[in-house]
Formats: sequence, structure tokens, C-alpha cells
Amino acid sequence: MSARGRLVIIGGDAAGMSAAAIARRRDPGLEVVAFERGPYTSYSACGIPYYIGGLFDDPDRLVSRSPDEFREGGIDVHIRTEVTEIDLDARTVTVRDLETRSERREGFDQLVYATGAEAALPNVPGAQAATPVRTVGAAERFRASLELEKARHAVVIGASYLGLEMAEALVMRGLDVTLVDRSDQVMRTLDPDLAAHVQDAAEGVGIRVMTATAVQEIHLDAGGRPRSVQTSDGELPADHVVLSTGVRPASELARAAGLALGETGAVRVDDHQRCPGFDGVFAAGDCAESWHRVLRAPVNIQLGTHANKQGRVAGTNATGGDVAFPGVIGTAVSKICRYEVARTGITEREAATAGIPVIAAEVKDRTRAGYYPGAGPIWVKLVAEPGTGRLLGGQIVGVEGAAKRIDVLAACVWSGMSVAELELVDLAYAPPFSGVYDPLLVAARSTTKAVARESR
Amino acid sequence: MSARGRLVIIGGDAAGMSAAAIARRRDPGLEVVAFERGPYTSYSACGIPYYIGGLFDDPDRLVSRSPDEFREGGIDVHIRTEVTEIDLDARTVTVRDLETRSERREGFDQLVYATGAEAALPNVPGAQAATPVRTVGAAERFRASLELEKARHAVVIGASYLGLEMAEALVMRGLDVTLVDRSDQVMRTLDPDLAAHVQDAAEGVGIRVMTATAVQEIHLDAGGRPRSVQTSDGELPADHVVLSTGVRPASELARAAGLALGETGAVRVDDHQRCPGFDGVFAAGDCAESWHRVLRAPVNIQLGTHANKQGRVAGTNATGGDVAFPGVIGTAVSKICRYEVARTGITEREAATAGIPVIAAEVKDRTRAGYYPGAGPIWVKLVAEPGTGRLLGGQIVGVEGAAKRIDVLAACVWSGMSVAELELVDLAYAPPFSGVYDPLLVAARSTTKAVARESR
Repeated sequence: MSARGRLVIIGGDAAGMSAAAIARRRDPGLEVVAFERGPYTSYSACGIPYYIGGLFDDPDRLVSRSPDEFREGGIDVHIRTEVTEIDLDARTVTVRDLETRSERREGFDQLVYATGAEAALPNVPGAQAATPVRTVGAAERFRASLELEKARHAVVIGASYLGLEMAEALVMRGLDVTLVDRSDQVMRTLDPDLAAHVQDAAEGVGIRVMTATAVQEIHLDAGGRPRSVQTSDGELPADHVVLSTGVRPASELARAAGLALGETGAVRVDDHQRCPGFDGVFAAGDCAESWHRVLRAPVNIQLGTHANKQGRVAGTNATGGDVAFPGVIGTAVSKICRYEVARTGITEREAATAGIPVIAAEVKDRTRAGYYPGAGPIWVKLVAEPGTGRLLGGQIVGVEGAAKRIDVLAACVWSGMSVAELELVDLAYAPPFSGVYDPLLVAARSTTKAVARESR
Repeated sequence: MSARGRLVIIGGDAAGMSAAAIARRRDPGLEVVAFERGPYTSYSACGIPYYIGGLFDDPDRLVSRSPDEFREGGIDVHIRTEVTEIDLDARTVTVRDLETRSERREGFDQLVYATGAEAALPNVPGAQAATPVRTVGAAERFRASLELEKARHAVVIGASYLGLEMAEALVMRGLDVTLVDRSDQVMRTLDPDLAAHVQDAAEGVGIRVMTATAVQEIHLDAGGRPRSVQTSDGELPADHVVLSTGVRPASELARAAGLALGETGAVRVDDHQRCPGFDGVFAAGDCAESWHRVLRAPVNIQLGTHANKQGRVAGTNATGGDVAFPGVIGTAVSKICRYEVARTGITEREAATAGIPVIAAEVKDRTRAGYYPGAGPIWVKLVAEPGTGRLLGGQIVGVEGAAKRIDVLAACVWSGMSVAELELVDLAYAPPFSGVYDPLLVAARSTTKAVARESR
């Protein structure tokens, strides 16, 4: 069953260490070696905004398992060690110790490429002085700087969910925050109608939101630190500039080694996380492509959920297993000020971009029975296939209790359920949790009607 | 398309008025007449514990649509009017005006039988002085009595979810509350291992829970009011006695008319809510049977969700439509003190009772990322089919955010998904909502392993 020898992992975060852990467990005779450029393993980048905002104080809590803990588990972890080259013929990697600057070669039998993603800096003067805040170290330094200095103004560039979370965190720190995005809406992962509610929520806590606004330059002071941000809509004072202008897969090392990249720029893999054409070579996580089950195309979505699962799949298959990663459907959730925000499948815009005809319907409802304290608004938008009414996607914005309903829609998209069937599914009801018809059922009914109208 | 004439509805609550409303909308030429014994239409019995507990003060908020509102919508509602006989040959009902005591006959072309359920009083002396608190009027009187009197001790008989909710409500009112049940656990709709956490939560707010305890007599004072409750485990002082010893379908009128009842004692219906053998006669809601998709047998489950949907189906089909009610899977949710509690499909015990072999697994996890404030315990138990691993049921107990996850399991049970497939479904993750593996995925993995172990 098991493939003995030496498994080398490039990248010590979610995907890499998931692969390492499962491989270690499945095959005690295997040597498992992981190389990580930074000082941490398996940390939660998703938790950084909450650390910055002060919801908790110990940055070590972001680390779910430290290098020492992995070592105790029999995994040979090398931190501050960068892999600079992969020789797929010789089956070696060249690693550089970032402390001593010394380089050496290490052999492998199986390889898991899990380098993650890296921030895509905007191409404007001064961008190097802005903070992507993607690592535990960067978060610690950034939070310390917020605590030490009399910073007043912050500009967050990029109104993705991460940009919004960081903007909220900085408001919690007492800063004046402006959120700038070149797009005409916040959160491009939602359709504009739903995103408008998210913008409301952000503005509700005092964030100044500037959409359709291009950043032209970050003006620096004599010490090379941000002073202001020049935008197409004026100059904004900025003691801090936070970048959330997106990330790209860290696939350059793979490309240089001869591994195929897909159109997304990420490493191409089959459904077993294998790199086609190279036996025993796997890729997983933010650096790799995933099959999108609704778009029926490879995508590159950077999320810890996929990274963990893909890492497990890669580590299982690298040790003689036979497990397929079934793909993704673009599920995501976030908490933005007073609203919870979630999506799954495809949006109306994504459908249009992909040339997929869809019918959409949206409802506004309440999260609880009207008389139960804490009831608040929830918007649900569904996207369905014309004719069949098959559910292709859903978006939810609403108060507490709203967003995790997305998982119900995810399960329905996953299993190919139609909105007409969803309308009568036996979902739970009690006054603290919904009206007698859950908002999802109300939305399904609305969408069923829209599909029927269209079919006439 | 539409069947003109006169539609008579017996029962003015969820099922009956859902039927009335959809019939009215679909067929403006139809005369729709509803007879309701009580003074209210369409009220939320589920909301009564929260009104008793003081979460809101206006009992009218329990009524989602009043008789006058229905009348404005063109439905001829007669409250305080009891149907005493149905003549299916003559197609008439005999109705009695409960104010004037006069009786009359009313003809119908289509009939929807939606009489609901009635409390099953325990067969012990004094039971007539206890309060079932199932109607708005009873709730108002009961709450007024709590406010007026210096009541100190309350005994709640029956530790169903309703009994637990009422016990909690009475604690919120400042009473000493004892909850008595003859079963050896609270909440028999859960397996004992999960129910134990619910008992912890009840005891945590000060409710004295006495399981495996039989009520032998309710001792009354000279005025016929409760004084104490004699149990197999001693006498309990009781200024108030609340009954939640279950309900039974109000099917006697139907039986007397010649409609078939099932083994559950409820009215037998086909998947269009038709009463077999009687053209144009429908039954819906608590008085009717439902097809259980997992047990593959008819059941009688009294829940507003089913009543509303079945009423819609009956009203649609009574007006020339062709809609099937797809059945139920036993989904339910409740909030009991610090925990949310939910179930879907079948429990391990229900499977045993039905002779269905299952494999079960249970996990304890956290509702949020460990570092995110408010993270707390969540227990998830799954029940799967041996061999295939098809998900047959799930139970969840946990802090805020735990329970509505049951709808994900409901969608998976509904669509026949296996636990192995569920393990890799693309569910949403962000620190405020779960760990990187949602507790449902963790439970699915555990169950997959248990299924595999069993198959070896």
C-alpha cells in the first residue's frame, strides 16, 4: 500500500502541513520533510483582521500547530528555509537557509508543492510602503505600530472581503478609515444588489467607502513611510495604508521547474492533486488550480478550506492512497460590520462572464420570527438554470444567523437540487431561528416562479 | 384548470389558512369558507413559551394573520364555530356557533380537513387543573395568572422540547421549576448521549430535572387549583402545573365521517394531501399523516412547517393544481437555555425501533475558530447506512450558531448524500463561523471512518 522513501513538502501552511500530517499518519516508515520560507507553520491568515481589531491579543493563537509540535509528531520541519529550485529529473530541490544564506540540495521521492499565494502589489509609486498584512509577523508588526503611534488616518486599498474586514478592524482601533476600490462596488464576489447592503454596513460603522476610484500614488515622507494616498478622486491623508488588492498563486518556482500552469496562473493538477506528467509530484492549496463544479472549469480560489482538503488528498495519494478532490463551488463567508455575508456556486455576473444563462431571484426576509428578539433583515439571492431550475448559486447578506445558511445552498448546488425541490425540503423551524418558512425556502419559491415565468 | 364552487376548510390555523390563502389566490371565482372553533386564526403556538417568558408582551404578535385580515382577502372566516359532523355523501358539514349554540348545515364542493392536534392529558387525578397552554387565549390567561399571583413553584410535566421551553420561560419569570418526565432522559427526539447535554443546560439555569419519574396525582386545593404534584419520587409543591405530555391528531371528526385513519391515528392522505376514496377531500397539518422519507412509512409529526406546506399543497390541488408534498424527514430545532438543539432524519434509537441497521458517530467541536470570541462547544452525531454510508440522520447540540447547521444535514439526507461525499463538500469557512473544517465535515469524516471499520 504505502510508498516508502522521502516526501518533501514545499510550504508549511495549510495545504503543505495537512499533506505532511496525513502522510506521516498513514506511513510511519516514510521520511516527511517540510520547507517553509517564513518562521511559522499552519497559521490562520483569516484570523489576522480579528487580531488587528483586538478581538484577541496573543498572535500565537493564529498558529494552529507550531514547527516544534510538528517535529514532535515526526515531521522534519525547516522554517526560514526557502526552496529556490526544483529539479524534477534529478528529483532534488535546492534549499536556502535564510539565516545563514547557505544553500544545499535535498532529494525527494514524492513532492508536494504548496507554496500558497503572494500579494499582488498595485503598480503605483510608493506601493512598497503599504502593508499587505498576510503573515503572523506582519500582523504583529502592524498591530504594534498601531499601538505605539498616534496614527489617525488609514486607507485600505481593495474592497474585497479581506479589505472590508481590515477596514472594520482599523475602525475598532479608533482610526479614520477610507476604503478605496477601482471597481464600482465593494466585494466583487457578490452581485451589485447584494454588495450594496455590505457597503451600507461598512458605512454604518463610519468607514468612508470610495468605489470607482483609482489609486495613483502613495506619497511617502522622508522616512519612506506613507503620508497620503493620491486617488482619482483626490488626496487622502494616510498614516497607514493597507493593501488588499488581491493575491496571485506562488507558482513561479513550479513553472521554472517545468510543471504546467493553467490559464489561471496556478499549478495545473488532476483530481488527485497530481501534476500531470510527473509521477509522485503533487500540488495543493492556494498555488494550485481547483475544478469548479458549476463553471466546469479550473479556477484558482485562495481559501483555507480548499487548502486543507487538497493537502489531505495530496498527502493521502502520495502515500499510496486513492482519493479524489471533488472540486469546489466557490463557497465563502465573511462577517462585515453588522452583516454576515456569504456566497456559493456562481453569481449572476459570473454566469454572464462564463456565458451561462441563468434566472435569478432575490427576497428580503427576517432571520427570526417577527416577535422574537433580535430578528433582523436577511437578503437571499438565488441563481438557477433556466428550464430545469437547477440551483447554480446563492448569495446571502443579513444579521447574525444569516450567513451559515449558505451551507444549505452549497449542499443543494453540490447535489444538483432544483429550486422547486428545495422549496419543499424539510428545513428546521423554531421562532429563534427563522419564520415558519425559512428565508431559503421563500427564496426558492420566488426563484421557482421566475423559472416558470421564463419557461412560458 | 380551476374547480369552481365552494371550498370549505375545517380549522383556521396554519394548514387550513394556508390552504385557504393559496386557493383564494389561484381561483378568484371560488367561494372559500373557513370554520375555526377558537377565536384566532393562524397563530404561532411555537411562540407561546417566549411570550410566557416575557421576551415580548403583546400576544397579538403571535397571530400572523387575523380573521379580519383574511376576510379582507376574500376568505369567509367563521371563528368560534365548530364543525360537529361531516356528511361526505351529501357533501355537507354541520357547524355549531359556539356563542349562540345554534347549528346549521353548510355545503361544500371541496373540503380541507385541518383540525390540528389536541393535548393528550395524562390519566391521573387532577389533570384537568393543569395547563396545556396551546392557544393564544390560554397563554394570555396563564401569563396573567403568573403576573397577578405570588406563585413560587411550578411543575412542568413532560420534558419534550416544548416542556423544556416552558420550564425555561417559567425560570425567566422567577419561579422555582421542576421538570418531570417518566422517560429516563429529556427530549426523547434525541439519542440519550445528546439529550444529556440538553439536561445539563436546563439544570444550568436552575431547572430541577426529574427523569424516570411518574406523575401519580395532581393534588388540588378547595378551589380546584393545583397545590402539589404527587410523583413516584415524592410530592412536589406546585402553584402551577404545565402539561406538555404530548398531543394527538384531532382526527375523531374525520373518523366518524368515514375518512380512513392510519396506524398513527392521524388522517391518511396520499402525496397530494387527498383522502383516498373521497374526491375533492383533503387533509393537512397536525391532524394528517406525512410520509417519512427515511423511515419509508407514514408518521404524524406536529410542526408548523409541515402544516404550512401541506396546507399550500392541499389548497393548490383543491383548485385544479397538481403538486405533491414530498414528505418529511423529521427535522426540528429548538433553543433550550444555553444550547441550541436540532435533529433531522432518524436517530440511532429510531433506527433500532424501526429495525434499520445504522452506524453512528459523534464528535465534539467548537462553533467558531478557537481564537474568535464566543466560540463554544458543539456536538454533532450522524447516523449512516452501513456499507453505502448514506446519511440517514443527524443531531446537533451546541451554543449559538450550532443548530441551524441541521439544515445542511437535512439537505444531504434529502438528496441521499453519503457521509464520504459530505466530508469534502465545499462548506463555508471564516473564523466567526467555524473552524477551517466545519463541525459537520469533522463529523462526516468520523462517520466515514466508522462505516469503513464496520465494512472490513
